[in-house]
Amino acid sequence: MINKLISKIQKTNAPIVVGLDPMLGYIPAHIQEKAFAEYGETLEGAAEAIWQFNKGIVDATCDLIPAVKPQIAMYEQFGLPGIAAYKKTIDYCKQKDLVVIGDIKRGDIGSTSAAYAVGHLGKVQVGSKSYAAFDEDFATVNPYLGTDGVKPFIDVCKEENKGLFILVKTSNPSSGEFQDRLIEGRPLYEWVGEMVAKWGEEHMGDSYSYIGAVVGATYPEMGKVLRRLMPKTFILVPGYGAQGGKGADLVHFFNEDGLGAIVNSSRGIIAAYKQEKYAAYGAENYADASRAAVKDMIADISGALENR
Amino acid sequence: MINKLISKIQKTNAPIVVGLDPMLGYIPAHIQEKAFAEYGETLEGAAEAIWQFNKGIVDATCDLIPAVKPQIAMYEQFGLPGIAAYKKTIDYCKQKDLVVIGDIKRGDIGSTSAAYAVGHLGKVQVGSKSYAAFDEDFATVNPYLGTDGVKPFIDVCKEENKGLFILVKTSNPSSGEFQDRLIEGRPLYEWVGEMVAKWGEEHMGDSYSYIGAVVGATYPEMGKVLRRLMPKTFILVPGYGAQGGKGADLVHFFNEDGLGAIVNSSRGIIAAYKQEKYAAYGAENYADASRAAVKDMIADISGALENR
Repeated sequence: MINKLISKIQKTNAPIVVGLDPMLGYIPAHIQEKAFAEYGETLEGAAEAIWQFNKGIVDATCDLIPAVKPQIAMYEQFGLPGIAAYKKTIDYCKQKDLVVIGDIKRGDIGSTSAAYAVGHLGKVQVGSKSYAAFDEDFATVNPYLGTDGVKPFIDVCKEENKGLFILVKTSNPSSGEFQDRLIEGRPLYEWVGEMVAKWGEEHMGDSYSYIGAVVGATYPEMGKVLRRLMPKTFILVPGYGAQGGKGADLVHFFNEDGLGAIVNSSRGIIAAYKQEKYAAYGAENYADASRAAVKDMIADISGALENR
Repeated sequence: MINKLISKIQKTNAPIVVGLDPMLGYIPAHIQEKAFAEYGETLEGAAEAIWQFNKGIVDATCDLIPAVKPQIAMYEQFGLPGIAAYKKTIDYCKQKDLVVIGDIKRGDIGSTSAAYAVGHLGKVQVGSKSYAAFDEDFATVNPYLGTDGVKPFIDVCKEENKGLFILVKTSNPSSGEFQDRLIEGRPLYEWVGEMVAKWGEEHMGDSYSYIGAVVGATYPEMGKVLRRLMPKTFILVPGYGAQGGKGADLVHFFNEDGLGAIVNSSRGIIAAYKQEKYAAYGAENYADASRAAVKDMIADISGALENR
């Protein structure tokens, strides 16, 4: 799956991923109204609005991008109907041949991580049958519990040719509280990064490992150091756009081969029509606004990579 | 809710919680067969088996215990039907007046943690209506992202009079890889513990904070230190029984008032009938075996507390 991701990045010339994190506040009134007319102002209604909104964005952008990253929390908050919309979104994106990164940030003790891994990336056994419950291509994982919390995910990835992105340095303002603390003179995120590189040796693709890392766009200097520490690790870079990251800041997340990173934007793409820059599209044409924002994002990042 | 948890612990004289982590392998054949006869060997069949298994254990133990802790991963692995069984289990336990600790170990950047918090502990807005999607009483949270990943959970807890247990030192063998690393001469888990105590000041119950900590039974010496560092913090202690912890090891997780900790056992209770000690009950009477194991666990821990 890391090989597929890379080949799709090369084909689209777009090292980006669209974060499908649909807050209701992002969804145009006409979509919400239609969904509520059919299902009422219910969890089912919210889930239908999310699904229709996502579908519009995926249809409008899928030829330009290699991957999507649905954030499960935005669906989980609407209970079972929300999670059904998450699954419907995954299946639809896979039909469109997009790589799906499930942003689930799970992580627990061994036997529990094994259950998450099986549920999201593998197949669960029921009597003599087996089922892929969620079937994302990649999942994000939290490393706080150490190797035996991560290993069950890697085991399933090996069986299924799937991959992970493990949190190393997150994009949020307070990520430094624990992640930046110095251990033997070096910040915790470097120690985690080294472990990710080591875990990654167990499950290599052609040029990069199936086991990637998450490093926030909001910390470009740390990205530079981590890029060197984890040469074979693909880096998922959240925090572009709305959270503050810019293309020029991101060049050091990439290797000399122009690969090694994939930059996520969520709000900046899916709610583009709300920005002044794309306001002319109007809420009715929100998906066209998203398409324009994707093109601008690709140009920003490709331009920065060419000029480095 | 922390006041309710404490009053229920005092009433039952049982500072314990039963972990409802139903692996299919724990579920007696007669329950699986009945569920599969009705729904086939499907995700729905697995979910039905889990639900019937849980109901048996809850019915057999609810008068003895203050709380249950369903581990969502064990349900999530069976997709939507599994998560429906998780919700059904929560609702049933609340009907039985048990405090429900959702072991979800979520944690993300601010806006995403807010969605998890709303979905699990609060109410989500849909147009003019609002809905409690999962409605657990407490949730477990991962602290790796720092204050702005935790704060949205605390905000919702304040609105709803609910609580958290934040991972400090986990029970698994490799928890030390990052959690034990020294920062200015003290292990990371102590720094996290101090932050949990600080966060907890924002949302105090009568004698303890609504914001608790997770510290594994498998590390009693660390529990002793953390107990002192976080005097007003309730500690959820996993790892008793099957993972190796014993009552005598756990006395230092408690304060002098006999409170301050609640010890979890999952496998040791719900799969008690598989242990030699309770084998005489037989698989048909698995719930009676669980009841006997609960009584033994209470005696072990109360005995240790009396003898300290």
